[in-house]
Amino acid sequence: MNSRIDIITLAVDDLERALHFYRRVFRTDAGEILGTEYLEDDKNAAGAIALFEVEGGPFLSLYPRAQLAKDAHVKASAAKTGDFSLGHFVAAKDEVDAWIGRARDAGGTITEDPRDRPWGIYSAYFKDLDGHLWEIIWRHS
Amino acid sequence: MNSRIDIITLAVDDLERALHFYRRVFRTDAGEILGTEYLEDDKNAAGAIALFEVEGGPFLSLYPRAQLAKDAHVKASAAKTGDFSLGHFVAAKDEVDAWIGRARDAGGTITEDPRDRPWGIYSAYFKDLDGHLWEIIWRHS
Repeated sequence: MNSRIDIITLAVDDLERALHFYRRVFRTDAGEILGTEYLEDDKNAAGAIALFEVEGGPFLSLYPRAQLAKDAHVKASAAKTGDFSLGHFVAAKDEVDAWIGRARDAGGTITEDPRDRPWGIYSAYFKDLDGHLWEIIWRHS
Repeated sequence: MNSRIDIITLAVDDLERALHFYRRVFRTDAGEILGTEYLEDDKNAAGAIALFEVEGGPFLSLYPRAQLAKDAHVKASAAKTGDFSLGHFVAAKDEVDAWIGRARDAGGTITEDPRDRPWGIYSAYFKDLDGHLWEIIWRHS
């Protein structure tokens, strides 16, 4: 099936701040700001993004909210939570707790504490500094 | 780097309608509704999702908006465009046009017609029936 998602672009208010948040949550020095040579003009959005090149994909790209709106030709608007969620599977139950702890320490908001859910998972949700939801998931069945 | 995104969950207003839309855009009979045995109760959201299991990942999951909000313990709210975008790379320029044509035929809205962008790509954006943005991208440099 030819429907692979290769890159996920999240609208952010502050590129440096968002990059720093994800470096802390992901426990990495990776992630870099690319495309600063592409300046905004009448027709084109600015090209600067913060990119995490994840092995096996998809890439995670952080892009200033106004520039994503301009590039997609949609109206820029304030951040909102609940339109989508990004899910990350971990290999052990305590890794869910560890991820949630790092997200909280980095300034994220835990919306739903870790717990068992009926469909055979132990999971929790946090939202990042721009309101984007992540679910950290351990599958035990 | 341990930050792989394994599943992307999109909030939708109508599960069957969204499944049908993506089957048309992806040109596939795949995608199925799972988890209908998990009914909503006081504590837990309903479990029914439409799932596209994409080889190499990430999975694409469609989940009723109110249930995602309940599962994540956030306030349910109306759909909004521009918080994020999902990017799909194609192997040839005319595949961008073909994807955009299918998205339009299936009822999606083209927000930005295919064109060259300064950073070495030819791309276009559409939004699905729930307002979620996709960018279809051919990289020529």
